[in-house]
Amino acid sequence: MINVLYAATSPTWEEYEAPLRRAFDAAGLAVDLRRDFAPEKVDYIVYAPASELTDFTPYVNTKAVLNLWAGVEKIVGNTTLTQPLCRMVDHGLTRGMVEWVTGHALRHHLDIDHFLDHQDGSWARYVPPLAQERPVTVLGLGELGAACAQSLAQLGFPVTGWSRSPRAVEGITCLHGPEGLDQALSTAQILVLLLPLTPETENLLDAHRLAQLPRGAVILNPGRGPLIVDQDLLAALDSGQIHRATLDVFREEPLPPAHPFWAHPRVTVCPHIAAETRATTAAEVVAENIRRSEAGEERLFQVDRSRGY
Amino acid sequence: MINVLYAATSPTWEEYEAPLRRAFDAAGLAVDLRRDFAPEKVDYIVYAPASELTDFTPYVNTKAVLNLWAGVEKIVGNTTLTQPLCRMVDHGLTRGMVEWVTGHALRHHLDIDHFLDHQDGSWARYVPPLAQERPVTVLGLGELGAACAQSLAQLGFPVTGWSRSPRAVEGITCLHGPEGLDQALSTAQILVLLLPLTPETENLLDAHRLAQLPRGAVILNPGRGPLIVDQDLLAALDSGQIHRATLDVFREEPLPPAHPFWAHPRVTVCPHIAAETRATTAAEVVAENIRRSEAGEERLFQVDRSRGY
Repeated sequence: MINVLYAATSPTWEEYEAPLRRAFDAAGLAVDLRRDFAPEKVDYIVYAPASELTDFTPYVNTKAVLNLWAGVEKIVGNTTLTQPLCRMVDHGLTRGMVEWVTGHALRHHLDIDHFLDHQDGSWARYVPPLAQERPVTVLGLGELGAACAQSLAQLGFPVTGWSRSPRAVEGITCLHGPEGLDQALSTAQILVLLLPLTPETENLLDAHRLAQLPRGAVILNPGRGPLIVDQDLLAALDSGQIHRATLDVFREEPLPPAHPFWAHPRVTVCPHIAAETRATTAAEVVAENIRRSEAGEERLFQVDRSRGY
Repeated sequence: MINVLYAATSPTWEEYEAPLRRAFDAAGLAVDLRRDFAPEKVDYIVYAPASELTDFTPYVNTKAVLNLWAGVEKIVGNTTLTQPLCRMVDHGLTRGMVEWVTGHALRHHLDIDHFLDHQDGSWARYVPPLAQERPVTVLGLGELGAACAQSLAQLGFPVTGWSRSPRAVEGITCLHGPEGLDQALSTAQILVLLLPLTPETENLLDAHRLAQLPRGAVILNPGRGPLIVDQDLLAALDSGQIHRATLDVFREEPLPPAHPFWAHPRVTVCPHIAAETRATTAAEVVAENIRRSEAGEERLFQVDRSRGY
């Protein structure tokens, strides 16, 4: 019997219990799944940063901590966590992110907001260019960034992807390093932020970087709130350097009602919905990782502590 | 020397002259391109329904009439037109249509209008389903319908396509005939109208057909205005049977300012921009059809008069 501790308050036990049990059964795993165990008896921890469990010291026999969220920055700095940590890379989450990024990229490409704002009987014809004339840049070429870049390329956008270290993604112009970032920003009519949050990426999009974009660029941030310096983005919106911003993540969530993003006419606030883990598909990933771990196979999506993601 | 008459007022000579000359040169064709010729000297007519040329009788030596518009219903009933007629199927037009349909389908799928309407500081979380849970139906599987259906399928939507006679499109559930139409409408959470306008398709989307859709369906019409019975659509919107409609084509264009579509909060009026012929790519199709015709090869996109499209 494999003892699995469910240690998350969001997503909830009510939402995940049944999908996890179904996934363990489907994987042929004999699992005792509970919300409480004597720590030394726990084989695996199903975890989310929203958890009362913050001291991993007593979990001396735990073989892996399996995160239900893609982001691990709230947990990776926890010095009591010495067990292997795996991120969630959920097929459903990836699909949801691709749909959100592709949908909002097309919304801005087609200037749908302009037409929504002109339902006044004026029939002002205005034909946007084709996607092939609209360069898009995706910062971050992990699972999510690469999938979004490929979806945009499929629709005809010329897509540049940037990552810290070199990557290759079919159909995408891949750049890396500091000079690559300068070049990636210089052409981006639509900029998608899908970088992990690390000391190097925090505040990356400041006044200097915003000024490197072509005038009138649009920003989509479904990645991490602190990638952007909020006041610098607001200044760039007001100067016209940035045309619109659609933001799904923020330094403080829920975004406080008084934050100027809410009232800005060219900012769209989404309530952190782009990277939603879907219980059914996420439970399958948890089960597969326990199956691999028990079989002595390499676990999926294990975090490299030296890089922080 | 091949004599080509440019006989269109929209698109204009100013917009098309240079792209056509470049395309003829690139195709190796020695063309005399003008806006006036003695009719009996004309080898080909580059045409659009917006033209002063309505009597084709004197063009006794004309080998083909090459339309710059995809729709031919305004010309196909002209009894003086006995010369072969080719529709425009422009790569740029198809790409533009795919982008418009995919963008508006994703807009409605992600319920972007809902978020735009809730920029009030309330952080009301609401996660739309994945595309794989959102069945879409495309009526019409010509060049444009098939391309749109495949783009939507690529994003994960389960796509059903319907056409009058049987068609096969990879990755799409293809239905045809009257029973097929009942079934295609019954599952369509998003319905895309890309049918040609014929006596059979005029007024197709009436109260009876609208009632066959699942409650809360969304309608995209980038095809032809008279496919829809306007008053029936308005009634279905007001009853909640139809959640939203995004319309790019109308019975009368420009849509008169007093038409209730303009003021309806859940109707988006677009000023006929989805099916825009792009001069550069369209000129290449005209040149290719003249090259084929001169070489004795089959012309592209020639209209079957018996079907009317």
